[in-house]
Amino acid sequence: MLIFSFWLAFAPQIASSAKYRVLAQENLWYLQLETGTVVIELNPQFAPNTVQQIKSLSRAGAYNNTPFYRVIDGFVAQAGPGDSPLSASVKAALGSNDVPLLGLEGRTEWGNSQPYTLVQSPDLFAAKTTFVNGFAVGLNEAGSKAWLLHCPGAVGMARGNAANSATSDFYIVIGQAPRYLDGIMTLFGRVVWGMDRVQAILRASPLGSGVLTPEEPKTHILRAIIGSDLPLSERMVLAVEKTDSDEFKEKLKARKRRDHPFFFERPPAVLDVCQVPISIRLESTADTQGQ
Amino acid sequence: MLIFSFWLAFAPQIASSAKYRVLAQENLWYLQLETGTVVIELNPQFAPNTVQQIKSLSRAGAYNNTPFYRVIDGFVAQAGPGDSPLSASVKAALGSNDVPLLGLEGRTEWGNSQPYTLVQSPDLFAAKTTFVNGFAVGLNEAGSKAWLLHCPGAVGMARGNAANSATSDFYIVIGQAPRYLDGIMTLFGRVVWGMDRVQAILRASPLGSGVLTPEEPKTHILRAIIGSDLPLSERMVLAVEKTDSDEFKEKLKARKRRDHPFFFERPPAVLDVCQVPISIRLESTADTQGQ
Repeated sequence: MLIFSFWLAFAPQIASSAKYRVLAQENLWYLQLETGTVVIELNPQFAPNTVQQIKSLSRAGAYNNTPFYRVIDGFVAQAGPGDSPLSASVKAALGSNDVPLLGLEGRTEWGNSQPYTLVQSPDLFAAKTTFVNGFAVGLNEAGSKAWLLHCPGAVGMARGNAANSATSDFYIVIGQAPRYLDGIMTLFGRVVWGMDRVQAILRASPLGSGVLTPEEPKTHILRAIIGSDLPLSERMVLAVEKTDSDEFKEKLKARKRRDHPFFFERPPAVLDVCQVPISIRLESTADTQGQ
Repeated sequence: MLIFSFWLAFAPQIASSAKYRVLAQENLWYLQLETGTVVIELNPQFAPNTVQQIKSLSRAGAYNNTPFYRVIDGFVAQAGPGDSPLSASVKAALGSNDVPLLGLEGRTEWGNSQPYTLVQSPDLFAAKTTFVNGFAVGLNEAGSKAWLLHCPGAVGMARGNAANSATSDFYIVIGQAPRYLDGIMTLFGRVVWGMDRVQAILRASPLGSGVLTPEEPKTHILRAIIGSDLPLSERMVLAVEKTDSDEFKEKLKARKRRDHPFFFERPPAVLDVCQVPISIRLESTADTQGQ
């Protein structure tokens, strides 16, 4: 009884009537970790140059056998080759001795007449929040600028102090959304499968700096590969609910309304965009359509 | 270079000058999980009756060998005896065949002349946010009511639809703060050690309801015990930074100011109370003072 009603009120609502978008394999980044497989949807709409570089580096093998070397529980898990010199084979595949510097892809020009599903206005960190293809997005008051948000599962490029200093290393948000980083980091994807495998990545000691010491065991990326490069039999066919559908708009309204009897007192009618679950379907563990 | 400046800007700031509070063993709840040891600080100030019941049930062995049976990545991990009948030994220890129903301890009367460290006003879900002894707290506009917040690591009682229907089962927040539950659930503690061990708890499939099926492997609580009942050699001496100190107030200001060169553009001067790390120190892995 206890379990049942709590479950009804909070279970991820997978509405059978909702419309789903099957993810394109060329934008799926499969990370085979020691803890299991993680799939990240890349976002070339918001970060075209970064996505291009992630693909080049992955295809050159730059992420294979690299560790999550900076892992702070409640914040981020960061991985990549770091300051290690590139191997001869990676250099040969890249056709370069160095990884090119990336320009920041923080905020994007946005058509302010473009329709969008409002999630919250004002939000603590943005004038408005919305979703674009399942990605949480912030908008300025005029609706002329849009940017991806640092929700749990968001994937971004590590950088130095300079805006345009990112190269290869990336982080996955694993805790409460560090929204103060929105717009000043390049976010280029989000985890769509295996977030539990991300949460199983070994942390640095909470008593240290967050960078794992040489003595601390680390979780490695065994192989990073773009979906369209995988044999059909190894591709996961994933579908994400469409966030511009009427069904999704109704879901947002219901989430603000909270009219289930569990809510004997109604919460404030506001939504934290990072706390809205986006449904996912695993259509097949092998791609029989060659999509 | 890349790693270094990113680290400087975001590493947990353990200020050596900050004042720390050593946690009382009688309010530490040690959960020995299959993934490792988790320590929860109980909060009798905000939830006196619930803390009393958690202690009684723990001492009766009601949580030993019980599973995390409802685990939704990004939301909560819920555990306890559930609907299973209590064992004869637990009944004998409790002196009862049933676990008493608990009244909701949602919001607490608060002295509105009581000084507090303001974190954010307005916050998306509360008029004001603050910390009380390291616990994130919401306040109404008048400052006459206070309540614990559903930040990651918060520990609360599961219940049915009725406000006063909680008994034994509890949940730990493992994802983006579900703040819409603030004030309508009894929160009674927070994880102060081993949050990484909580994050390693086995999830239910993201395609299901969140309740693990009989076939899905589950993480169990091997033993739940109150710190003051442990032999001195098994107690962890933990100290949490004081959140009413001048050092902590300065830390909050610096977090809003963001004047490190990493922030080539300043984020909005707001704070999500659930995204402020509270420093912890492990003073010793054995209690040599008998504190």
